[in-house]
Formats: sequence, C-alpha cells, structure tokens
Amino acid sequence: MTAPRYLFPHRHLLGIQPLSPQDITAILDQARGFEEVCERPEIKIVPALRKRLVVNLFFENSTRTRNSFEIAEKRLSAEIINFDADTSSLSKGETLIDTAMNLESMRPDLIVMRHAAPGAHALLARHMRASIVNAGDGAHEHPTQALLDAYTLRKRFGRLEGLRIAIVGDIRNSRVVRSNLWLLTKMGAHVTLVGPPTLIPAGIRDTWPGVAICHDLEATLPSQDAVMMLRCQFERGTGAFIPGQSEYARFFQLNPARMKLCKPDVAVLHPGPINRGVEITSDVADGPNSLVLQQVTNGVPVRMAVLFLLCNPHGEQVP
Amino acid sequence: MTAPRYLFPHRHLLGIQPLSPQDITAILDQARGFEEVCERPEIKIVPALRKRLVVNLFFENSTRTRNSFEIAEKRLSAEIINFDADTSSLSKGETLIDTAMNLESMRPDLIVMRHAAPGAHALLARHMRASIVNAGDGAHEHPTQALLDAYTLRKRFGRLEGLRIAIVGDIRNSRVVRSNLWLLTKMGAHVTLVGPPTLIPAGIRDTWPGVAICHDLEATLPSQDAVMMLRCQFERGTGAFIPGQSEYARFFQLNPARMKLCKPDVAVLHPGPINRGVEITSDVADGPNSLVLQQVTNGVPVRMAVLFLLCNPHGEQVP
Amino acid sequence: MTAPRYLFPHRHLLGIQPLSPQDITAILDQARGFEEVCERPEIKIVPALRKRLVVNLFFENSTRTRNSFEIAEKRLSAEIINFDADTSSLSKGETLIDTAMNLESMRPDLIVMRHAAPGAHALLARHMRASIVNAGDGAHEHPTQALLDAYTLRKRFGRLEGLRIAIVGDIRNSRVVRSNLWLLTKMGAHVTLVGPPTLIPAGIRDTWPGVAICHDLEATLPSQDAVMMLRCQFERGTGAFIPGQSEYARFFQLNPARMKLCKPDVAVLHPGPINRGVEITSDVADGPNSLVLQQVTNGVPVRMAVLFLLCNPHGEQVP
Repeated sequence: MTAPRYLFPHRHLLGIQPLSPQDITAILDQARGFEEVCERPEIKIVPALRKRLVVNLFFENSTRTRNSFEIAEKRLSAEIINFDADTSSLSKGETLIDTAMNLESMRPDLIVMRHAAPGAHALLARHMRASIVNAGDGAHEHPTQALLDAYTLRKRFGRLEGLRIAIVGDIRNSRVVRSNLWLLTKMGAHVTLVGPPTLIPAGIRDTWPGVAICHDLEATLPSQDAVMMLRCQFERGTGAFIPGQSEYARFFQLNPARMKLCKPDVAVLHPGPINRGVEITSDVADGPNSLVLQQVTNGVPVRMAVLFLLCNPHGEQVP
Repeated sequence: MTAPRYLFPHRHLLGIQPLSPQDITAILDQARGFEEVCERPEIKIVPALRKRLVVNLFFENSTRTRNSFEIAEKRLSAEIINFDADTSSLSKGETLIDTAMNLESMRPDLIVMRHAAPGAHALLARHMRASIVNAGDGAHEHPTQALLDAYTLRKRFGRLEGLRIAIVGDIRNSRVVRSNLWLLTKMGAHVTLVGPPTLIPAGIRDTWPGVAICHDLEATLPSQDAVMMLRCQFERGTGAFIPGQSEYARFFQLNPARMKLCKPDVAVLHPGPINRGVEITSDVADGPNSLVLQQVTNGVPVRMAVLFLLCNPHGEQVP
Repeated sequence: MTAPRYLFPHRHLLGIQPLSPQDITAILDQARGFEEVCERPEIKIVPALRKRLVVNLFFENSTRTRNSFEIAEKRLSAEIINFDADTSSLSKGETLIDTAMNLESMRPDLIVMRHAAPGAHALLARHMRASIVNAGDGAHEHPTQALLDAYTLRKRFGRLEGLRIAIVGDIRNSRVVRSNLWLLTKMGAHVTLVGPPTLIPAGIRDTWPGVAICHDLEATLPSQDAVMMLRCQFERGTGAFIPGQSEYARFFQLNPARMKLCKPDVAVLHPGPINRGVEITSDVADGPNSLVLQQVTNGVPVRMAVLFLLCNPHGEQVP
C-alpha cells in the first residue's frame, strides 16, 4: 500500500500564512529541480508553462523582483505581458477591480501582482479564474522572498528546523519580515528580532508568540546560525523612527567588528537592495559569509517552482 | 459548380470605412474560431503568426487597447516589439515618417499603431511593406473597437441587420463612434445618436444620412435593442461643451430608473474605461444587461482575426 | 592539408579596438547570411539563439539602437528581458556593480548594455559569466554602429580597403566616430575627418596617425568615395563649441550644392537620428546617393551576427 499522493492544494499564492509546512517543503523541493536547470551551461529553459499566459502587474516599482519573476517565466517558456501601471487606465480613474476584471476578461493563466494595499491580492483572488501570485503587498507579505530566503538557508545548512536566525533592523516597514516570520516559525526555526524599540511594532508577539525580541545586536549575534539584515526603508518612512543614519549604524550595523562576535560559519542574508554603509558595510555584504548573491540566484528557481505548482498541482513532469 | 472563393482583400486595416459588409463578416466569422481558442481551459495559443514580427507603436497612452493587441499577438505566437514612443528618437526631433521608415527598415510584418493624427496611418501605409493596423487615430477611427462591439452584439442577438442601437453621449470627441457608424450602417442596423446638441457635431447626417439624431434619452430608450454609452472624454475637452458633470448626468446618464424604460433584454455596452457615476452608474455597468466585460473579452479574438486575415487572406487553416 | 579553422576568439564585444581585421571580416560575412534571412518574404526568424536569455540593459535612452538589438534577438529566437534603468533599483541607491551582479545571478547568456561611462562594459566583463555587448558607452565606442556602417560600405563598394571616406561634423561628441576610426583604419580605408577645429579634439592623430584632418568640407568632397555625416549632438553639448546652427550649416552642411562637388556615385551615410536642415538637408538625406535607410536595415543582420558569434564561436550552422 502506497502513501496517499501529495497534491499542492493552493490555487493562489497570497502569502506564507496559509501554507502548511508540507506546502513549503513541496515548493523548496520543486525549486531544487529547477535550480539544476538554471545552472546548466547551455539550455536553461524548460517547456513547463509553454502556451500559458502570465501577466506581471506591478503597481509599485520593483525592478529586481519583476526581473526575477520575468526570468522565471521565460525559463518556464510562458508567454508574458508586462502591465505597466504608470501608463495604465488607472490614470483615467479606473479602479483596481476594473483593471483586474479587464485583465481577467483576456483570460490570463497567472497574474503576478505587486500592490501597496495588503488586501488587494485576496480581493482579486475572489474575482478571478487566473491564479494570483503576491509579489509584495505594502508591509504585509512578500512570500516569494521568504521562500527564497528559506531555500538559501536550507541549501546552506541542510535544514530549517532548529536553526537560530536573527532578523535585524527595520522590522516595522518590512513586508519581508512578516513572510519570514510565518515561514521560519512554521518550519521550526528559532527567530530573534533585533532593532531599536521604535522599529519593532507592538503586537508582534501576539501573532508569533515563539519569537524573541532583543534590542542589543551584539548580545544576540554569538548564538545565531544566520543573520538576516533588513533594508532601512528610508523611502518608506524609516527615518521618522530613528535619530539618524549614523546613530542607527552605531548600534545595528553589521560590520567586521561585529562579525567577529558571530560563529565563524554564520550566514549573512539581505533581501536587497543594500544601503551600503548603513545597515551593513560593503566588506560584510561582499564577504565570505554573505549569501546575498545566492539569494538573488535562488529567487529564479523558487519563483519557477511557485508558478509551476500553481499551474500543475501534481508537480510530476518536472523539470 | 462552386461559388468563387472569398479572399480578404485588404493589406491594411486603416478604418471601417473601406471595408465591405463581406469583409466585416469575414472578420467576425474568423473571430468566432479564435474565441473558442481563448476559452480553452488549457492551451489558448495557436501557431498562426509564428515567426512573424509585430511592432506595437503607440504614440498615445492606451494600456487597455495595447494589452488586448499584445495578448492577441501572443495567442497567435507572433514575435512582438513594443515601441515606446515616450523614450523614442522622437524626443530628438525625428519625424513620424523617419521613425516609421526606420522601423520599416527592420522588416516587421505588421505594425499596430495608435497616433493622434487622423492621416498618420494612411501616410504610413503608402510607405510601408508591413501591414498597418489602426489602433486608434485621434477622433477619426478606432476600427477594432467597432469590430469587437459588433462581435459582441452579433453574439448576443444572432445578427446585426435590423437591430436598433442608440449611441449615447460624447459623440464629438469619440473615435469609437465614427467607426461604429460606418460598421453598423453598412451592416443594416438602425442607429440613433443621443446627446446634448453641443456634443453632436453638425454634418453627421451628411456622411451617414440614415442615422437618427435625438436629444432626449428617455424618449429614445424604449425602442432600442442595445444602448452603447460613450465615455465622457474630460481629458480631451468634453468639459468645454457641457455645463457640468451633474447637469450632464441628469439628462444623459444611464441609471436604474432609465433602465426601467428599456426593453427587458436590452444590451448595454461601453468601450471603457468607464467614468462610474457620470455617463453610467455602477449598478448598470455591472448589472445583468451589461456586456461591458464581454466586450473586453471579445477584443482578443477579434484582434486575432484582424491580424490573422491581414497576413493570411485565405483564412483557411484556422485556428 | 586544410588551413587551420578560424574561431571567433572573443567572449565580449566591448569595442572595435580589440578586434583583428579577420574578426571584423568574420562578423561581416556572418551578417551577410543573416541579411538573407531578414529579406525573406515570409519567415525571417532562425532558431540560432533559441532558449538563450538576453538582457537589454539600457542606462541611456536609445530607442533606435535598442529596437534594432531587440529585433535581432527576436530573429535569433532568443528569450529577452528589457531592463529599464529608469524604474530600477538604481533609484534606491544601488551601484552599477550591484545591479550587474544581481542580473548575473539570474544567469543570462548575453547582456547588451548602453551606459554613459566608458569603462562600465569592461568592468562588467571582468565580473560576469555572461557575454557583454557594448551598445554605446558615452563618447568612447559604439562598435555595432561601426560594423553596420562597414557592412553598408562593403555591400555598396565590394570592399573597404582603399576606400576614401570623409567623416564630417561633431567628431568631439561622437562615440560612432571612434569605433569607425578603429574599424576603417584596421581595414585599410583612407579616412579624413572634417569639421570646425573646436569639434575635432587634439590628440586624434596620436591614436590614429594615418587619419587626415581637414577643416574645409568643399575641398575634401571631390576625392571621397563616401561621406559619413555625424549628428550634431546638441543634447550633449555640441552647441558650446560652435557659433550657431546656421553658421555651422554654412560651412559643414551636406546640401545639394555640395553634392555637385562629389563623385556622382558617392555614398552618403548618417548614423541617425538626423537633424534635418542642420548637418544635412532632407533632399540629400532622402536622395539617390543616401544609404541612410540601408544602414538601419543592415543594423539587424550585423547585430544578429555579433550575438551569434559570441555564443557560437565556430559560426558553422548558420543561418
């Protein structure tokens, strides 16, 4: 008698919160197969989404995430429409729902959307036949970033369970951190949030009771397997919560002196783009413990896996 | 003895004016085949324009029309170049003809162009090997919109001949209305234009003598099979011709009270984007008589049919 | 015994300077094969770069060059990502190297880059697995433009060696002229630079000792096989070096009167976009001696040849 077959049970990827540990593992396993495709010297493209239409619908600038999704889609042989929201009918007073219904009327298979409003993706998912992928929504969730972080950590350490991970910096304004909190706690990692009290919102422990909070970076570093530095989102208002960049750096910057407090094989992550010299110095960002570029590299197979599983819940003929 | 074979006789689609009723029927029939393709649950793409190069050359913003064309091109497997006029050599003082000749030198098969100057498309057609498709030219013609409106009406009523259709609102500034007047009169429908005298240009009856003009919406509605509401083009100067939006709405808005004057199965169309609460209320636009989203849906197979017939006048191996 | 097989020895195209005459000839010969593809009435696409990923990374506006590259890439069946630098992470303070490393992490096969800094391409080439193609770098090199000029001249005259070619105008601000000086002198053509002293930088003869310099256009014209007019780059500061456009035109404009001084079959070239009525009049630019549109046409097969040879140094299975 064989075990019951696992099927990926989701039609949309709206966040990490609705995923089970098994779902997360299925995505990471699928991504491993696609990573091999991406590292082939010659042909890095598979026909997995051939003749499927994907719309990239970005209401906020994010070249890095958009490029990563677009490369993932190309490597899966999908047909791609980039919907540029700046030049859209939105400037003629159309609502998001109008725009979405109009897109839906053109029968895409997948819509990859970044939108500042946290509820926008769920709203769309209720009105659409297409699968919706959340490519970032305000300060709520950014699930593919958390998945690529997890993929990078699992590849480095062979597991997620039991890892000690510090997430450092601008907790308040980061959508990455929420998705990572869901993912890492579901997978059994031990998370410590580190930052000035003004950048750690009250109520975090209500949602994730197992998470530790600490305001002293140097006290936290020695016990950690990985340190995930967050970007100071000055363009999103971080500045209002800290006395100044140099004051911030004095307490929370990851620099060579603080690296000496860490385990020798500590992993350093950063979702990018980096404010060099603010939350992290260049020698650490580019140094031997940094996995920053691996995170970018891994973004492509992880996004391939998400797109593929949403269209092919069996995940069988891959890659 | 078999009837002589019909061949689509046009190399360009510059407007509805040059088309015969047989040409229009050929496009609508071809679109029906492509609609089936678009509604397939899985593979919605055919190889009809494989290895053909299409340039989308939009000198005016129109995300909706451009997306619809781009999706049609993708579904036909064409190779696509999106020429973004904002970032073009035009800013270095190049003329339209220079731009066009430069594009032509790169040997595209089809050029889909939106340009504000009514003569621009015909000018290009005289200088080009590529087929030119008019995707909207100022207030002159927008032929694919009229074709998708006709497709939607024919699908709903089974015919165009003899239908009673009111076109309501900003007749003056609409390119849609001119293309629709050509198409609907050629196909034997009875058209009534409804709007304030300031928005109905003198001379309409010189070109289309069979068209009725009426300034009283409520008197017109009871006899109509379909009501086509036009967008008030405030961004193109409609405001100068009406006393105010609320005054306009008081006389010419399609709302639930006026829907009660219509036949129960009246069809409501709007080319979008809608000014909700101005020319039409949301409950009517989203209500059971509305074909607005079907219009958008039908835009894709209709544009597929146009592109296909221009490249394949026999239209035989479709889809 | 057969001669040793020639292999294209370069992994990047950073400029004309590093190329040997044999390399240049290999590109032009390869382009001839692709030109036949481009002139086919029906299928103008070959699978030569199928499943290869090309990133077009333009940090400066250049629709014409970008379109030409993109069409070349489409005709080779490559997968294409257009990286729009305006909406990029660069606006969040990222450095060129960060951007490039992030792109590299996504494993593209080729990066076609335009960037204002002369050293940017070489810097990237040192950090990348991908092949780098220089699509223009400040006032330093623009190698594919020089190659398409050479292709156009060779096609017209059957050879480059021994041709007498005047390059006229804004030598100071032109990246085209440097690439052309390298190419034409390597291939044995006789080049004369013509312009006001303020627009011909000192030191030209140190780098290209065989090149003649002359400030009298009318004295130069009678002996020339080809005249290559440069664009007055007013947007890049040409105005500061000349007393005025009409004064400039009085001495250096190519117009019908000066065409009478030329050989009857003189070839007139211009890299575009043309300032009509400044450096050249419309009747000459559009006249029987003009090869301006052929230059644009030839840009596509020449760029196909470059992309192909960088990925396939044997150049055997073409087209």
